[in-house]
Amino acid sequence: MDNKLMLMIPGPTPVPENVLLALAKHPIGHRSGEFSKIQAEVTANLKWLHQTQNDVLLLTVSGTGAMEAGIINFLSPGDRVLVGCNGKFGDRWAELAVAFGLNVDKVTAEWGQPLNPADFQAKLAADTAKEIKAVIITHSETSTGVINDLAAINQHVKAHGEALIIVDTVTSLGAVNVPVDAWGLDVVASGSQKGYMIPPGLGFVAVSAKAWEAYKTAKLPRFYLDLGKYRKDAAKNTTPFTPPVNLIVALQAALQMMQAEGLEGIFSRHLRLMKATRDAITALGLPLFAPEGAGSPAITAVAPTTVDAEQIRSVMKKQFDIVLAGGQDHLKGKIFRIGHLGFVSDRDVLTAIAALEATLLQLGYQGFTPGAGIAAAAKALL
Amino acid sequence: MDNKLMLMIPGPTPVPENVLLALAKHPIGHRSGEFSKIQAEVTANLKWLHQTQNDVLLLTVSGTGAMEAGIINFLSPGDRVLVGCNGKFGDRWAELAVAFGLNVDKVTAEWGQPLNPADFQAKLAADTAKEIKAVIITHSETSTGVINDLAAINQHVKAHGEALIIVDTVTSLGAVNVPVDAWGLDVVASGSQKGYMIPPGLGFVAVSAKAWEAYKTAKLPRFYLDLGKYRKDAAKNTTPFTPPVNLIVALQAALQMMQAEGLEGIFSRHLRLMKATRDAITALGLPLFAPEGAGSPAITAVAPTTVDAEQIRSVMKKQFDIVLAGGQDHLKGKIFRIGHLGFVSDRDVLTAIAALEATLLQLGYQGFTPGAGIAAAAKALL
Repeated sequence: MDNKLMLMIPGPTPVPENVLLALAKHPIGHRSGEFSKIQAEVTANLKWLHQTQNDVLLLTVSGTGAMEAGIINFLSPGDRVLVGCNGKFGDRWAELAVAFGLNVDKVTAEWGQPLNPADFQAKLAADTAKEIKAVIITHSETSTGVINDLAAINQHVKAHGEALIIVDTVTSLGAVNVPVDAWGLDVVASGSQKGYMIPPGLGFVAVSAKAWEAYKTAKLPRFYLDLGKYRKDAAKNTTPFTPPVNLIVALQAALQMMQAEGLEGIFSRHLRLMKATRDAITALGLPLFAPEGAGSPAITAVAPTTVDAEQIRSVMKKQFDIVLAGGQDHLKGKIFRIGHLGFVSDRDVLTAIAALEATLLQLGYQGFTPGAGIAAAAKALL
Repeated sequence: MDNKLMLMIPGPTPVPENVLLALAKHPIGHRSGEFSKIQAEVTANLKWLHQTQNDVLLLTVSGTGAMEAGIINFLSPGDRVLVGCNGKFGDRWAELAVAFGLNVDKVTAEWGQPLNPADFQAKLAADTAKEIKAVIITHSETSTGVINDLAAINQHVKAHGEALIIVDTVTSLGAVNVPVDAWGLDVVASGSQKGYMIPPGLGFVAVSAKAWEAYKTAKLPRFYLDLGKYRKDAAKNTTPFTPPVNLIVALQAALQMMQAEGLEGIFSRHLRLMKATRDAITALGLPLFAPEGAGSPAITAVAPTTVDAEQIRSVMKKQFDIVLAGGQDHLKGKIFRIGHLGFVSDRDVLTAIAALEATLLQLGYQGFTPGAGIAAAAKALL
């Protein structure tokens, strides 16, 4: 049905109506006092969401641009870095680090499995010369629906003492607990079209005092993504280059909603949505791609064997107006992914599971009792 | 009055209501067939606006990000470049080029004066070793309201034969004739919040075949701004990184409006608005900052001497709800700037001039006959 699409993908995520209306307001000048007030409020609320007193900087970029800024501002060519690779985005950071001449040492796990903190521990403990300058990981691996154990990996980074911890939190911030100060995370990068509940086009980078120390000697060339410029101007509630004014006004509205829900409310909602989704998928006899305990509260990947993943996506979209994500790279056609991140409620998960049951029935899938998915989800939502 | 602001600044420019409503539509997935169709239409219309068959690539950046992409993809550290500097933005490109290790040779003119094509001719003709790899200039210098003679400078670049011509058209594209193919412009960078009539957050780079040849050997590191990735994906109507979906849907609506008006209509409207503004300013006895023949069709800078520029801006905003731009850097307090770029009609210029007259009267300025500005503007609009 036209104009009826419901997004259950890991970004863009659904945008609340009041946020869309804020987005549609006439732009104001970005060098005005009015805009500086908005930037000040937004920055304060971003610090609240990041649970940090560190700088949280606003960039006109997608998530990859935020990650690039998080790497090129603090490292120099030849620097040894450990990069966690267990999905498309971990691989992307490795490619990015190689493109900037870093000496990349990959810590890998199979796609669909979490990174093993002990692998980091071993490499970090062996580095008595303190040559490892940074550990770069993806918190929630969007491509596989796996959450990596950031807290455990970070403890090994802290034991090393020298390396920075640089984290892609693109599909974790605003969905999962990321206590930046309590954990001492040095560089935390994210993007607007995920937990923030606004459209894509805005990136965020939180930077610790330790990272700013590294900035002083980092030698990669930079200008548009030079975070020092953003920090200097943020102190005056402005930006070095034109910010995406309308997206920031939308963000103001979205962050007010997040404050009203509270951090605990946001995190427990995402955990509940994950549990309901995973329990329902299991009840439908479909294999979960991420093992128990490693599922991302943002997204659930499903690896059906006796029914085609792309056919499921096709019926879900054509008949039920629900968009699910497919697999990426070598997982294309092998998995489908249900996003339950951002402006998603219990009702949305029930809706998606109900439509999935109807789709499975239509595709002749035999492995389930119709109604079993909804029964399991409803129980998880109790 | 609340919610009554009228922007007459050089960006963000006013956004048409139908474009704001397009912006506020629920986002769709950027990896969907629906979005690819929109990207295909938008790209075709961008080529029409650029008057080119070259690639025109979409980036999630501000204008500075587009310029950075336009420089780092085609040059290598140590490359000699001529950079035209006669305002804040020319100076910015020189800083950017220095930040990336280029060997910058500035061609300067006083702020408020146009660059002299003969200065480029002399340096290019003297370069028999063909060491100059690029000439980088700002077409419409937003900080001073001066338009540089791109056609004449470009002829000298073409006579040189080796150097690329890299142009910031941030406040000229969509307002002024920029025939990319007819002139053989190699790299043309612009931003969404100007002639395109949409909010900030989207950058554009048009790239010639000659520039793509230079890309093959250019050695600056790049990833997020690697235009080769954008070109490869644009061939499939997609992007390497998440695009700002809502801004692109808004751009689709804006480009349809521009097509309906036609290139000749757009260019002649901006020339008419410039003439009306300049004639009115002269009739009010206020000095124009850019000399006759060098005024930008996008923006008019005024340098009052017996009345304070900042006081004018203050009354215009507080009493008449019209936002004018101030001077930048050393011109702060010395000039004010009237933007007449993008979604601006004859009525808007009359409104601004009428309010300016009322403001001058209130500030006790003696140098004019009330009504003279409107009389001159009305005549110019005939």
